[in-house]
Amino acid sequence: MKVNGQSTRTIWVKNGDPSQIEIIDQRRLPHEFVTMTLTTVEDVRAAIADMAIRGAGLIGATAGFGMSIAAQTARPSFFEEDLQKAAKILIESRPTASNLAWAVNRQLLAISKASSVEEKVKVAIAEAQIIADEDAASCKSIGQHVLPYLKELSEKKNGKPLNILTHCNAGWLAFVDYGSATSPIYAAHEAGIPLHVWVDETRPRNQGASLTAWELGQQGVDHHLIVDNAGGHLMQHGEVDLVIVGTDRVTRGGDVANKIGTYLKALAAKDNNIPFYVALPSSTLDFEMLDGVKEIPIEERDQDEVRKIWGKTDAGDLLSVEICPSITPATNHGFDVTPARLVSALWTERGPCEANEAAITKLFSDLIN
Amino acid sequence: MKVNGQSTRTIWVKNGDPSQIEIIDQRRLPHEFVTMTLTTVEDVRAAIADMAIRGAGLIGATAGFGMSIAAQTARPSFFEEDLQKAAKILIESRPTASNLAWAVNRQLLAISKASSVEEKVKVAIAEAQIIADEDAASCKSIGQHVLPYLKELSEKKNGKPLNILTHCNAGWLAFVDYGSATSPIYAAHEAGIPLHVWVDETRPRNQGASLTAWELGQQGVDHHLIVDNAGGHLMQHGEVDLVIVGTDRVTRGGDVANKIGTYLKALAAKDNNIPFYVALPSSTLDFEMLDGVKEIPIEERDQDEVRKIWGKTDAGDLLSVEICPSITPATNHGFDVTPARLVSALWTERGPCEANEAAITKLFSDLIN
Repeated sequence: MKVNGQSTRTIWVKNGDPSQIEIIDQRRLPHEFVTMTLTTVEDVRAAIADMAIRGAGLIGATAGFGMSIAAQTARPSFFEEDLQKAAKILIESRPTASNLAWAVNRQLLAISKASSVEEKVKVAIAEAQIIADEDAASCKSIGQHVLPYLKELSEKKNGKPLNILTHCNAGWLAFVDYGSATSPIYAAHEAGIPLHVWVDETRPRNQGASLTAWELGQQGVDHHLIVDNAGGHLMQHGEVDLVIVGTDRVTRGGDVANKIGTYLKALAAKDNNIPFYVALPSSTLDFEMLDGVKEIPIEERDQDEVRKIWGKTDAGDLLSVEICPSITPATNHGFDVTPARLVSALWTERGPCEANEAAITKLFSDLIN
Repeated sequence: MKVNGQSTRTIWVKNGDPSQIEIIDQRRLPHEFVTMTLTTVEDVRAAIADMAIRGAGLIGATAGFGMSIAAQTARPSFFEEDLQKAAKILIESRPTASNLAWAVNRQLLAISKASSVEEKVKVAIAEAQIIADEDAASCKSIGQHVLPYLKELSEKKNGKPLNILTHCNAGWLAFVDYGSATSPIYAAHEAGIPLHVWVDETRPRNQGASLTAWELGQQGVDHHLIVDNAGGHLMQHGEVDLVIVGTDRVTRGGDVANKIGTYLKALAAKDNNIPFYVALPSSTLDFEMLDGVKEIPIEERDQDEVRKIWGKTDAGDLLSVEICPSITPATNHGFDVTPARLVSALWTERGPCEANEAAITKLFSDLIN
């Protein structure tokens, strides 16, 4: 997608040198557009854990490049040991992200098929790029599949904009390109369908306010920022035509882990007969799990993400302000699980899929071990 | 309730002089405890509109004192005209607050019964204090009615704390004393019932983080601050035993206007079979309205309340930070309406009341014109 009019991805090989991986430091957005270079497994782990990069697809792609770096920096005589160590470190860097283990394991499998260390390194470098390219292609495909449906919805509105609500950032910044939830939005916008997006700010880390609002603005898509509390009211008053969110993990039963607060929006959509869609590339599916509420591990993060909020002062400084008394403790769960019964459909790179075990295991039977 | 160990109300006559009304400037909390003096109708209007004071009961009490100031400052030969003008100004200072018109009209009725201007001024001064005292007594009574029920719930938990979730601030800071949603909490805490409160931060103005967390801390009640997105997840995982919120207006059908986001918590409570209670003094009832979603006017406020967040820097400065791109527009609805079907009961100064027209009009038949 575009940054200041220039086509950009969220992660790329720097100057054709596969030992240097360039990313956008998303913690500085929307106030500063800064990139950073990753050259060690520790760099990659820190970028994931400290959320310089985040989002299902981008975490996967970064882990893929992380395994490429791991292969390039492993001691030849301890290649397997170093590779396994890196795999463990990367997998543990974010507990809820399904794409993390998916990308790492895909690399391990690809690397294992090569015979020499030299070959293994080549394979790791190539596989990282393939994972990234596939992510971008998958995301693009999600939007293309949904476009006719959005056209149909739009025609019923007689020229009035289609109102879409989204939570968190499942935009191109969360993937390598296009995004999952935003892919249909960008496809529709490009096709000239009038639309308007309600952007949940998405506390505690405000990825909606800082990332989704930024990227929609950069692509020229009409939108308004709202607090996470506002969606129910807007739905009650006919101001939302559909909800599209991304996800960090979907079980084979169709339960959806996504940024904390998604479940509340799904409940409100149900209560107001508004369709609630979850967009995802199939790499986000976790066929091992069935009951998301019981089985998906939910990351607990630093309480200061709740107690403090980062932003830009009138003077232009970037800093955090504390919003509660200095003695107040906080609890910070990063995700929640939306039960499949609240999901109208999953939007995948293979087209729409009902959110239930039968439909999911049928459409993706080839991906199940 | 207590501030730094001293018993305090939220509004009082300063030094026994009824022309000077003292309030806590709640915009400075939790970082600074500052009071301010109101001496003109314009002072009172600004204190309400700019939210130096806020909350159903306190808005009513402040409007009552505002009418006392109006009577004291009216030109004797244009007394009626000036009084009516002040009434209009005060009623229009916050559109959603039901207690505002209630208190102003109560003053107008009381004042109209006195014959001379001198008498009218005396009546207005006395009535303002009565409104404030009744508010405190009503709130105290809400807690006393609910206490046996909380004891019963607590006994089922075998010594584990009762987990209560609340949204926004319906604490003593929102009334003259005790609060509505917090009155049962303070009564239970005083009675030695082990309890813990989940405090929704309540964006955009963060009254949960800045006011509820502060007042619970001052009274020594165990609590954790959470983002508004977290309640559903906590409910899914058995971490919430009941929800108690306040309200700005309840229709005779039992629909509840409260701070934006309340409706989402009510949906989550319903989905998880958790009781959802609304605490209110009867002054918050609006017998004229039936369907809250259709009829209750919802205030739209400045978009910068969404775009910026106020707090304390590490250096101790109090300032706002912008959380989105400088070009991002925002929408800011102050309240939403929770339909009566989601409300387990209304907790009033006359005891619990089912949230439906039959029960409300029966329990409060004497208040209906």
